[in-house]
Amino acid sequence: MIKQVDHIGVAVRSIEQARVVYEQGLGLVCQGEEEVRDQGVRVALFAAGETRIELLEPLSADSPVARFLERRGEGIHHIAYRCDDIQAHLDRLRAQGCRLIDQQPRTGAGGRRIAFIHPGSTAGVLTELCQTDRG
Amino acid sequence: MIKQVDHIGVAVRSIEQARVVYEQGLGLVCQGEEEVRDQGVRVALFAAGETRIELLEPLSADSPVARFLERRGEGIHHIAYRCDDIQAHLDRLRAQGCRLIDQQPRTGAGGRRIAFIHPGSTAGVLTELCQTDRG
Repeated sequence: MIKQVDHIGVAVRSIEQARVVYEQGLGLVCQGEEEVRDQGVRVALFAAGETRIELLEPLSADSPVARFLERRGEGIHHIAYRCDDIQAHLDRLRAQGCRLIDQQPRTGAGGRRIAFIHPGSTAGVLTELCQTDRG
Repeated sequence: MIKQVDHIGVAVRSIEQARVVYEQGLGLVCQGEEEVRDQGVRVALFAAGETRIELLEPLSADSPVARFLERRGEGIHHIAYRCDDIQAHLDRLRAQGCRLIDQQPRTGAGGRRIAFIHPGSTAGVLTELCQTDRG
């Protein structure tokens, strides 16, 4: 079962520049920054109720987020849902003919189990499922 | 102050087709559909914790969402934040040089006060602020 929107990923060229409007303009509080090397990004997280805005800055020109920026410019990159049994979700989506980017969960930021669903199966929305120890 | 992400708007060609994956694939529960004529869209809302996914289908070829679909295809259209004083937010954003689409709040779906911020000021993200009677 989906519990909530865990975060919304936003591709940006520069976290330093983009955070100004999220902090000073919208008044969101930054919860920290970290590098997620296997996804080729630096991320900054901003709390918005139970959800977070995740600014994503590419670490190199061949990172998937760099390619997204080249193709589409800055903007919303993905929606991540927190769920309680990621494997059951993937099995159900696969059985319904959804195209999965990750057939099995892998480890994402903060040691969480994550998996991406291809936007071609979700009305153009790159969709992430994530599961923490607490679900 | 921003309280939470109220909803995430997703532009789709057909709510009927797109809802299959949101309901049966992701398991989200539809809270209803309605037409918002002054924005030229039919919307279907799906609960995801305190946030909702808002599928947006254009009512005509000259609706802004139809133009978005033509330009970018299906995908995430905007993020809406619920806040407690929308006018104070707009004043602050304007004072910081942000480009506002709505200088003053207007009435959106469900009689709420809403206003849009131009994506050029928010790292490419079309951003909506909304305020209910309860904030």
